[in-house]
Amino acid sequence: MSEQAIANRIYSDRIAKAQAELDRQGVDFLVVGPSSDLFYLLGHPARTSERLKVAVIPRQGQAFVVVPTLEAPGLAERQDLVDLRRWDDTANPIDLFAAGIGDARGKTIAVGDQLWSVFLLRMQAACPGAQFVSGAGVLKELRVIKSADELDLLREAGRRTDDAWAEFIESATLAGRTETEVARHLAGLMEEHGLGAPAFMIVASGPGSASPHHHTGERRIEEGDSVVFDFGGNIQGYKSDITRTVHVGEPPDEYRRVYDVVNRAREAAFAAVRPGAPCESVDAAAREVITQAGYGEYFIHRVGHGLGLDVHEEPYMVGGNAEPLRAGMVFSDEPGIYIPGRFGIRIEDAVACTETGGEFLNHATHELIVMH
Amino acid sequence: MSEQAIANRIYSDRIAKAQAELDRQGVDFLVVGPSSDLFYLLGHPARTSERLKVAVIPRQGQAFVVVPTLEAPGLAERQDLVDLRRWDDTANPIDLFAAGIGDARGKTIAVGDQLWSVFLLRMQAACPGAQFVSGAGVLKELRVIKSADELDLLREAGRRTDDAWAEFIESATLAGRTETEVARHLAGLMEEHGLGAPAFMIVASGPGSASPHHHTGERRIEEGDSVVFDFGGNIQGYKSDITRTVHVGEPPDEYRRVYDVVNRAREAAFAAVRPGAPCESVDAAAREVITQAGYGEYFIHRVGHGLGLDVHEEPYMVGGNAEPLRAGMVFSDEPGIYIPGRFGIRIEDAVACTETGGEFLNHATHELIVMH
Repeated sequence: MSEQAIANRIYSDRIAKAQAELDRQGVDFLVVGPSSDLFYLLGHPARTSERLKVAVIPRQGQAFVVVPTLEAPGLAERQDLVDLRRWDDTANPIDLFAAGIGDARGKTIAVGDQLWSVFLLRMQAACPGAQFVSGAGVLKELRVIKSADELDLLREAGRRTDDAWAEFIESATLAGRTETEVARHLAGLMEEHGLGAPAFMIVASGPGSASPHHHTGERRIEEGDSVVFDFGGNIQGYKSDITRTVHVGEPPDEYRRVYDVVNRAREAAFAAVRPGAPCESVDAAAREVITQAGYGEYFIHRVGHGLGLDVHEEPYMVGGNAEPLRAGMVFSDEPGIYIPGRFGIRIEDAVACTETGGEFLNHATHELIVMH
Repeated sequence: MSEQAIANRIYSDRIAKAQAELDRQGVDFLVVGPSSDLFYLLGHPARTSERLKVAVIPRQGQAFVVVPTLEAPGLAERQDLVDLRRWDDTANPIDLFAAGIGDARGKTIAVGDQLWSVFLLRMQAACPGAQFVSGAGVLKELRVIKSADELDLLREAGRRTDDAWAEFIESATLAGRTETEVARHLAGLMEEHGLGAPAFMIVASGPGSASPHHHTGERRIEEGDSVVFDFGGNIQGYKSDITRTVHVGEPPDEYRRVYDVVNRAREAAFAAVRPGAPCESVDAAAREVITQAGYGEYFIHRVGHGLGLDVHEEPYMVGGNAEPLRAGMVFSDEPGIYIPGRFGIRIEDAVACTETGGEFLNHATHELIVMH
């Protein structure tokens, strides 16, 4: 069987699963633009742009893709699975979309979360009488449980990321270099390990380490800094996501204590992972450790998010989410303590839920690393 | 005046201009998520994620930003300009949004093009009776004419990109290397010239050169290939965008002829640039040259797109767009000829429309380069 035939079988199965889910949920069409949803369904790594490109999967019958002529060659391998409806730069692609939907009155059309609003608004105008809803419910059922092949890719992405990190802490110096310079160094190691360009990279030093979504910048790292590294790459689209926090020079006792609290919170969350446990219980387990230690007010985010083709996807380990874990779910375990103006510490592993509990997808050391 | 005070004056002016435009167009609110629109309005380089983050600018009165608590520190410098409405991971941010809108009945709410559909659908559900429309009309009026400062940044981005390219053609060999390896080499030069990580990078070789939006891959470049390089970086968010096509080894006469046709088409488009000329006339000027030479069917895209904080933005140089050019508009001039299965050639410069005509923002040579 050729590589293309194997791929087409995978994507044909996924389209069929999507159609079964549409049928189950009583949805007539699923509309997906460039995103991990599209990559999942067709293996097509499309870029989002102002040119409309969407896959439309009806509950029954032939799926189609509205695609700019100049991007159509990228879908040539899928033309046995989906009908390619090309449009030139002088045409209006919404006409092609509406023609494919047909009489829209009374129809329910689910759209992928990441489709740009400009396209949704045009679709709504072109399909009067249709009800547009979020496609998240359909897509989640397809993507939230990873297959054996997907798990292997996520494990491999984690393993290589651990290796890149190990090389980094062996070889890098921090004091005197900017966050950006250090980020570039680490990014180079990620690429050498076949993880592609970083999917994301946070290097947050000193006071910036206390801002969980700090933007890596031109600050020069100093002796005495806490430095949070939160980064990931990908293998065939499947992401890694790890955080380690290091101290530049010998840390004070308080820092060591807080580091230990965060690390125990991470372990407590991991220990809560098992099929049937509600997502929020994983968050609660970490929060309990941090609250008991007196730092509850400084743990200002959920403990984790799903991980797969997207860096953030379902399921979310957050208070209020009672959804039970299932084997095959993959997510981050990343508690943190952020003391404004002083320092922040976050430690994160990717974790899979197995039939019997949790499986770490990262194995880099959790010991407090002192760098210079 | 401190740097922050200067920045706040710039963004305060931009918010005021947005409000004037809302008033002129009879729109009640402008809603902008992470995107160049948000960066333009607040100077905030937010990442798009599943956590709702939007700036809401009312026609009159105080603008506000709904922002996840953990990302709020990034907006601290703007808190004199906008009211920060933070939400924790266990809260529903749409409630904050709807409360800020108030009684939505009869209101017109314009949303930025790139806002994810998942958020628009929730907003529509939370604001019954409101009419949601595209914010493109408002934002375009703000962004399409570049200020003197913006033009300087675009010129500088172009100049540095030219320099990186000049070093690349001096130092690089192509034959035997993969597209990805070559792309990494060029990306490194871009970073060395202070252009950041590439905003985009197409290296399309051999038959792939005939696909305008080819995905750079593992194909090994060979003697006899046409190789299209289409790439850009940024300075303070303002993008460069250049394309050059080189031949590996001595090209056949036909290739030289086609190269010359594309280059003359590029010159013809440039010569058509002047205030008052319709955008489509720039496209037509290039198309005329290519059609006259007998290659009309192989020029399968518009000749250009606006360039600024986004790589593709208004105005578009495309058939059917009668909008007149105005001084301060910046866009690409990038005709191409793509002969399926054989080769493609595209040559692109960024161009500004001035009071008297066109100004090139790229000055790299247009001569046919033979590499090895």
